[in-house]
Amino acid sequence: MNRKPLRVALLGFGTVGSSVARILVERPDLATHVQLTHIFNRDVARKRASWVPSSVAWTDNIDELFAAKPDAVVEVVGGVEPAGAWVRRALTQGASVVTANKMLLAAHAPELLHLAATYGAQLRFEAAVAGGVPLIHGVREGLAGDRLTRVAGILNGTSNYILSRMAGSDEPMSVVLDDARKLGYAEADPSADVDGDDAAAKLVVLAGIAFRRHLRLSDIPRQSIRPISSADFRYARRLGCTIRQIAMVETGPQRAGPGSPSRMPARWDGDVRVGNPATPAEERFHAFVGPALVLRGSHFGLNMGANNVVTIAGHYGGENSFSGAGAGGPATAVAVVSDLLSLTQRTHERGEEWPSARVASPPARPYYLRFVVRDRPGILASIAASLAHQRINLDAVLQEPGYPKDALPFVITVEACEEASLKAALDEIAGSDFHAERPLALPMLFDPVAQACATGAPELGEGERP
Amino acid sequence: MNRKPLRVALLGFGTVGSSVARILVERPDLATHVQLTHIFNRDVARKRASWVPSSVAWTDNIDELFAAKPDAVVEVVGGVEPAGAWVRRALTQGASVVTANKMLLAAHAPELLHLAATYGAQLRFEAAVAGGVPLIHGVREGLAGDRLTRVAGILNGTSNYILSRMAGSDEPMSVVLDDARKLGYAEADPSADVDGDDAAAKLVVLAGIAFRRHLRLSDIPRQSIRPISSADFRYARRLGCTIRQIAMVETGPQRAGPGSPSRMPARWDGDVRVGNPATPAEERFHAFVGPALVLRGSHFGLNMGANNVVTIAGHYGGENSFSGAGAGGPATAVAVVSDLLSLTQRTHERGEEWPSARVASPPARPYYLRFVVRDRPGILASIAASLAHQRINLDAVLQEPGYPKDALPFVITVEACEEASLKAALDEIAGSDFHAERPLALPMLFDPVAQACATGAPELGEGERP
Repeated sequence: MNRKPLRVALLGFGTVGSSVARILVERPDLATHVQLTHIFNRDVARKRASWVPSSVAWTDNIDELFAAKPDAVVEVVGGVEPAGAWVRRALTQGASVVTANKMLLAAHAPELLHLAATYGAQLRFEAAVAGGVPLIHGVREGLAGDRLTRVAGILNGTSNYILSRMAGSDEPMSVVLDDARKLGYAEADPSADVDGDDAAAKLVVLAGIAFRRHLRLSDIPRQSIRPISSADFRYARRLGCTIRQIAMVETGPQRAGPGSPSRMPARWDGDVRVGNPATPAEERFHAFVGPALVLRGSHFGLNMGANNVVTIAGHYGGENSFSGAGAGGPATAVAVVSDLLSLTQRTHERGEEWPSARVASPPARPYYLRFVVRDRPGILASIAASLAHQRINLDAVLQEPGYPKDALPFVITVEACEEASLKAALDEIAGSDFHAERPLALPMLFDPVAQACATGAPELGEGERP
Repeated sequence: MNRKPLRVALLGFGTVGSSVARILVERPDLATHVQLTHIFNRDVARKRASWVPSSVAWTDNIDELFAAKPDAVVEVVGGVEPAGAWVRRALTQGASVVTANKMLLAAHAPELLHLAATYGAQLRFEAAVAGGVPLIHGVREGLAGDRLTRVAGILNGTSNYILSRMAGSDEPMSVVLDDARKLGYAEADPSADVDGDDAAAKLVVLAGIAFRRHLRLSDIPRQSIRPISSADFRYARRLGCTIRQIAMVETGPQRAGPGSPSRMPARWDGDVRVGNPATPAEERFHAFVGPALVLRGSHFGLNMGANNVVTIAGHYGGENSFSGAGAGGPATAVAVVSDLLSLTQRTHERGEEWPSARVASPPARPYYLRFVVRDRPGILASIAASLAHQRINLDAVLQEPGYPKDALPFVITVEACEEASLKAALDEIAGSDFHAERPLALPMLFDPVAQACATGAPELGEGERP
């Protein structure tokens, strides 16, 4: 075990990159394992930091960096290109890569994993999902003995900040979003966060971690949180719920393959592929990204601010939950440095591959339907008739006082139904002329564990703030 | 990687053992990695299960089992002996051991780890702390890049069931404990659970996982939850808190060693020892097991029923939290099977050792002091004077209406003070003749992360139950 330290080149010296360098500099105990040799950044003169030892070469010439033949490359540049070209170049010359780049992985994970396997390099990405939350090892090794069935999480801190603050304050989204921008939680253009693209990319990586399968990013259905109003939180509370942006993937219906003893998606356990991999055509997953009703006492409902939380459900072990800082330089850098250290420990791992799998239409679910109407007699009857045409059962009708007659929000919850039926009913309903806003449909995501947690938590709602 | 499957002998066919066998039988995809060859149990004829393949040999003769030279032994018998003798025997003949036995590890981990290293065997124990929660890999590898500073958890499901139910119901402990026995959450003699011995043993293992140091079980201070009354929950709520049995270990004050650049406890990162290990004499940890006031909105305050939760704080990454089923056959069995699979993947790990470390007196902390008195004038003045003698500052005095004059509970909270000063003051106070019950002192364990979580959670306390 007395190998030379791993020679590491750092691509990108922004928030995460500088935190990675900081940990490596501040922990001399790591020096025998990991040695930072190069830092690459555009306009590097502007970036140079005096606390970085003089032994580190600063460069803005990528060729110079690769010519030095680093053992490992840390890619914290972000974006699909040119980061992707640099990652390919590193792997092709046999350098292992540690990356925090969810967009690159969501787009090209299968290709990059194949490249790594081909050239005997490793590709590590603990930092790409839920920043500092140590998911990969816990899931891959700690839960290897289980059969995972569902992975769900709050993976976008910006959306969670917005929704958890709206839930507590009655403020409109525009006000909260402005504040989020001022506090640095949201970018000038928050589309990637609030419309679900960021969470969808992370979900592709998370599905890879949990099931070793690749879902196509464009196949992940996503819904924006933009239409959520303070009225929605008021109605959600009436239902014992709140609203969060949830990213979820679960094992879906499997087409029975001839002579296939297990139709569970095959998984890798530890580092050796185990199981009886179904052919890709057989495998389907349900996936979803968007605002959903969750129980207030569940791990999701209790998750506040920019924190991330991921729950993993298994056939044997039930549900486990991991939570922590989803972003931020130091927390993400811990994941990167941990990956670097794992490269020094596990040098003989066989590369893994992620075969593609399909995203199937969602299972039947209960939904929350919110209408904003110009009030007049007959609206409820008309909506109820359209739902009945599709054989969708109403569960509850809620109408809170205090709203204007010309923009009156009210809510109907419906029992579990197919998405296609719901869509047909809503298309018919949307044809009426009483709408002041487009109808909103949110899935209600309850699961037994979350419900048990909520039921067991009576002390939380006794009129005092925790 | 085309090795023969690991030949596994199972010691103990109770709840966990039979679940381990069940997973191995139900997952044929594991057969190329792990092969169950023997099941040992006393009075084995009574245990024999028809769903176990006939290739498995059942025995109540331990010599027969060891004569078969298994590659690995799963020890789920529990108790220090004879389990300890069997684990030693396995390691000595080069068989790796997977155990769920916290009592054995708390008593003898250093010796067993040394034995494993000496004979080239592995010792794995993911199942020994927080049953199904995949802690070890997450902490060891996922957080290897951080400097851990504190590990705290709710590790005893029985105590948490009792306290979380008392918090919500106003029932006295005797009633809740009786129900817990009926539901199978508590044993006829619940001492090990409620007095903290079970959590203390798990804490010793958790400290080993996080810091690779061994704390002596008898050194861990522990306090029983037995004196907690429904009045305590009422007062705790007034303070925004609730009460949980917490097990906690944190890096303590270090004596400066000459020329030691880092006085942080050295850790292992990945599998290679890194750092500048201080000599054992330099290392001290704070440890505590017992009921404590925690914020209602914190991970601890929100943990209900028999669930376990563990939070890990690091210098760089802040706090991460893991939660899930702390016990139960299938969840614990997932941890055992995961450990077995990891043995098939990582065959060349160097054995680790846990040098001893000392438990230091706790840091200065704020405390919750509850008195039950026969009311008369001058009591508060007398108590305040005793606290003042020790230079302990009062923070709040709380007295709720509705209690009888001859057994009146009231609460004083005090600012952070040394345990020794508090003890001196309480000794003086206990000498007075106005007490109807022995005074109770509980530490108030708040940390910035938990506080931020609580502050960010206004939607939880609006008069409705989540």
